[in-house]
Amino acid sequence: MTDMEHVRHSLAHLLAAAVLKKFPKAKLGIGPVIENGFYYDFKLPRTLTPEDLNEFEITIRELIKRGLRFSGKKITKTQAKKLFKEQPFKLELIEEFSKEKKELKVYKTGDVFLDLCRGGHVKNTKEINPDGLKLDKIAGAYWRGSEKNPQLQRIYGLAFETKPELNEYFKLQEEAKRRDHREIGKRQKLFAFNDLVGTGLPMWLPNGTVIKEEIENFAKEMECKANYLRVSTPHIAKEELFKMSGHLPYYADSMFPPMKLDDGNYYLKAMNCPMHHLLYKSEPRSYRDLPLRLAEYGTVYRNELSGTLAGLLRVRMLSMNDAHIYCREDQIEDEFKRVLALTLDYFKVFGLTKYWFRLSLWDPKNKSKYINEPKNWKESEEKLRRSLEHLNVKFVEAKNEAAFYGPKVDVQYKSSIGREETMSTIQLDFAAKKRFDLTYHDQNGQINNQVFVIHRAPLSTHERFMAFLIEHYAGAFPLWLSPIQVRIIPVGRAHRPYAYELSKRFEEHGIRIELTHEHETVGKGIREGELHKIPYLIVVGDREVTSHTVSMRQRSVKEVATMPFDKFLEKIVKEKKERK
Amino acid sequence: MTDMEHVRHSLAHLLAAAVLKKFPKAKLGIGPVIENGFYYDFKLPRTLTPEDLNEFEITIRELIKRGLRFSGKKITKTQAKKLFKEQPFKLELIEEFSKEKKELKVYKTGDVFLDLCRGGHVKNTKEINPDGLKLDKIAGAYWRGSEKNPQLQRIYGLAFETKPELNEYFKLQEEAKRRDHREIGKRQKLFAFNDLVGTGLPMWLPNGTVIKEEIENFAKEMECKANYLRVSTPHIAKEELFKMSGHLPYYADSMFPPMKLDDGNYYLKAMNCPMHHLLYKSEPRSYRDLPLRLAEYGTVYRNELSGTLAGLLRVRMLSMNDAHIYCREDQIEDEFKRVLALTLDYFKVFGLTKYWFRLSLWDPKNKSKYINEPKNWKESEEKLRRSLEHLNVKFVEAKNEAAFYGPKVDVQYKSSIGREETMSTIQLDFAAKKRFDLTYHDQNGQINNQVFVIHRAPLSTHERFMAFLIEHYAGAFPLWLSPIQVRIIPVGRAHRPYAYELSKRFEEHGIRIELTHEHETVGKGIREGELHKIPYLIVVGDREVTSHTVSMRQRSVKEVATMPFDKFLEKIVKEKKERK
Repeated sequence: MTDMEHVRHSLAHLLAAAVLKKFPKAKLGIGPVIENGFYYDFKLPRTLTPEDLNEFEITIRELIKRGLRFSGKKITKTQAKKLFKEQPFKLELIEEFSKEKKELKVYKTGDVFLDLCRGGHVKNTKEINPDGLKLDKIAGAYWRGSEKNPQLQRIYGLAFETKPELNEYFKLQEEAKRRDHREIGKRQKLFAFNDLVGTGLPMWLPNGTVIKEEIENFAKEMECKANYLRVSTPHIAKEELFKMSGHLPYYADSMFPPMKLDDGNYYLKAMNCPMHHLLYKSEPRSYRDLPLRLAEYGTVYRNELSGTLAGLLRVRMLSMNDAHIYCREDQIEDEFKRVLALTLDYFKVFGLTKYWFRLSLWDPKNKSKYINEPKNWKESEEKLRRSLEHLNVKFVEAKNEAAFYGPKVDVQYKSSIGREETMSTIQLDFAAKKRFDLTYHDQNGQINNQVFVIHRAPLSTHERFMAFLIEHYAGAFPLWLSPIQVRIIPVGRAHRPYAYELSKRFEEHGIRIELTHEHETVGKGIREGELHKIPYLIVVGDREVTSHTVSMRQRSVKEVATMPFDKFLEKIVKEKKERK
Repeated sequence: MTDMEHVRHSLAHLLAAAVLKKFPKAKLGIGPVIENGFYYDFKLPRTLTPEDLNEFEITIRELIKRGLRFSGKKITKTQAKKLFKEQPFKLELIEEFSKEKKELKVYKTGDVFLDLCRGGHVKNTKEINPDGLKLDKIAGAYWRGSEKNPQLQRIYGLAFETKPELNEYFKLQEEAKRRDHREIGKRQKLFAFNDLVGTGLPMWLPNGTVIKEEIENFAKEMECKANYLRVSTPHIAKEELFKMSGHLPYYADSMFPPMKLDDGNYYLKAMNCPMHHLLYKSEPRSYRDLPLRLAEYGTVYRNELSGTLAGLLRVRMLSMNDAHIYCREDQIEDEFKRVLALTLDYFKVFGLTKYWFRLSLWDPKNKSKYINEPKNWKESEEKLRRSLEHLNVKFVEAKNEAAFYGPKVDVQYKSSIGREETMSTIQLDFAAKKRFDLTYHDQNGQINNQVFVIHRAPLSTHERFMAFLIEHYAGAFPLWLSPIQVRIIPVGRAHRPYAYELSKRFEEHGIRIELTHEHETVGKGIREGELHKIPYLIVVGDREVTSHTVSMRQRSVKEVATMPFDKFLEKIVKEKKERK
């Protein structure tokens, strides 16, 4: 346990003491440490109010000041049952611990509180900084998480070392709420879920589809330049293919169940690679054909339990800009360099700067976990390391974290709300060549079976990446991604023909515009535009019609600027093209 | 039976006569009329050769000249069994017909042949034009199509009214072979099938994917201009949705079987409409929002028997540029006009001219087959008719051919090999509004439940359309669709830097190029380019390097032209942009 965990655990005891002070008949559940704090469950004579929380917090602070000592001792079952005779939940735990032959211990907090507890506290409450404490919220919880048991009231507390850290936490929480992808997705009409379609299956509304296609086009353009070839494969395939790839039976739990047709069992694919391997094999390959980079915007399906699904972050349908690179051994390092550089090029356009890399290696001692090709492990790990060094980026190494079939590089990211996540993974695979009999003809016309496969999807899945981007931009998408790029607001009916003329000009240049409704006031037109975070709002009235100008408000810029229409058009066409 | 069917049926008898002349012990199967001709099945002492066919044909021509009369009469089972005592297959038929209480008849051809037959002949063989006859081919066939029965030899004959018609048939056959989408697809590496993936599930190779994406981008561009909004939905949904839409149970046989997950049964979608209806309902709609045009490149799955699948024409996976238009009653006619016009705009770009339309109407007497909304049928049929008249196109009306839920317009096409097919269908649907409770708020804020839906997919499914296009262009795709648009052939090693420089310039302008391999001769470079029907082959040697020109061969143009590189680049960039 870390020091802060000791503090949090101790605070849970103090909370229980505070609750008992106010409600002497309170029945106590358990009070564990959690991320950023702690909680404690109680059965109480009435429902708690926010005022109660304040009162408890004041009591806790008083107890802290008193410099109470924590001290523990072992006790027998008989002693324990006597001590907690008024506490039915604790009695249940005592019975259970005894049955499991666990030792029973109690901890005293000064003279104010005694709890059945295995320890892990501060020595004295004076070690706790009361400024880092905040009782956060109340929630209902069943005893031991089961609906069949009595319902309790759970009090959550936050605890940090210092006040600034607590404030930082609140700031991030607020930020997370402000940036919540589900809220923004709803408000900006990006995607929708429907129980009739099913859990974890987002449907992209027109606005969300604009963004989806812009990202797809961007990725296709980038990868076309990087000499990727695009392919397109079905969403289902026969059982035999997934047996060959090893997804069956090893990955069967994550796959949807089979569909029995007249010619065998078909499965929704959970990955694109088996089909790409077949395309690799669709003609004889020469050393000159390698590296062969096959890319596909493929949608795969994974069977997750419905209860675990949430928003776009946990879904059953995963669309991704997937690709598999087939290369010779002497090309591995260079291909990794290229993929890493491509990933950073993507990040640049999306303004992502807080990344670092993790090189995941095998553990030669853990033979059962890894494919048994020591030479390939040794050499390829060195190649991956060199490609990271070459890129001159921050990276950490993680032993025993590789995939079964080869080492990998994870791209880690610290999000706008402080969450660390793996953005994407670049994996080397030296198992596929054997499973799929991947070969090429070398310079002497001999068959070489050392074809290495790189799996990569730099933009993660589209669903997760969209959740990430919505949060990253807090819904204020850059011009090139914005579903509506310019909102045109004519002052009155007389200015509508000019507004209409401008809208045609915009459309000719592929700018996505919106013209306000006839009966909408200028004020409402601006407010609505700001609410939906449209990058540019232009108002046109008498002066603009006469001088062929626009009065332009750029998102998050206070000043209104007036400029000739042609100049404005040129400006945003340029921004769009440059993906600003 | 038509006159030609009489001729063909009569020729089947003459064929049997000719075979019996050469093989008196031949056992006769059956000899029906088929499209363009006839066949007859025989059990013979030896395998036939092409020479045999010639001999039979000569015999038939002699028989025709003799002016033999066909005459039939009823006979009893006893008589029949006596007459055909040497013919075991005929005896089997006699037993069967007797059991089914069918009358037994025999037909005589002059004095040369007698067959068990229900009639339908010419009166005299002189009515047959021998110039329209050709014995076509021999194939194996089981008696009554069952592997358990003896194997017979089947002789196919062609018969047309005139020699030119026969020749026309051969020409179309040759054309069909030359244009066979499976052959061209293989040669040009457009798509691949693999038994491990499954029957009827094409995988698009890089070349095929280029074409697929060009068509998709084209359709998206056209429909963006026509104010369609794009959406994107999952490939699966819950049973409840398909019950609501009526696909279950009415369409269950065509759907893949369900997949049982922890929260219910999921099905692969066989159509996109149910999900689009949900998106329509995802927010309240106003009369001002209509028409709402939701488009999606959606892939749907239909469960066909594996034995019926062939190439791209019969598949289990159907990708299509689908859209559903939600409109008010007063917008139906205009929306149909727009969809028809859009369809013709598409056809223009693909150079499709041999189309006509079919307006499929209900039959008021056939109540059970159609949704019972007589007023909607009457008025909407009139609207569809007016939209066709407005377009000033050729159209036929077909009573009792509408869908259950509304009238439709089929776009018929006569393909390059003379096959008539339905290219696409535009269907009006007035059943969806009730099933999905589709409504909008009218000008007075009242809820109106008369939302009409138009289903349309002008380019058919991608699979069928690609099969059609490959055949239509015989693999010589126009520049904008060609996977490789320009092949650069340097004369020698010294010209490769110039060739490379040009290739970069091309790529900057989005032109898809291919540079020949270092060791490929100019001759081979040109031959390969012609074989793969690349639109432009450019050869660069000393003269071209010095003068900054290219020596250009345009596909199907004999002359080689030399022009400045910049001019050539400008020319093809323009062609590409104009989708030439």
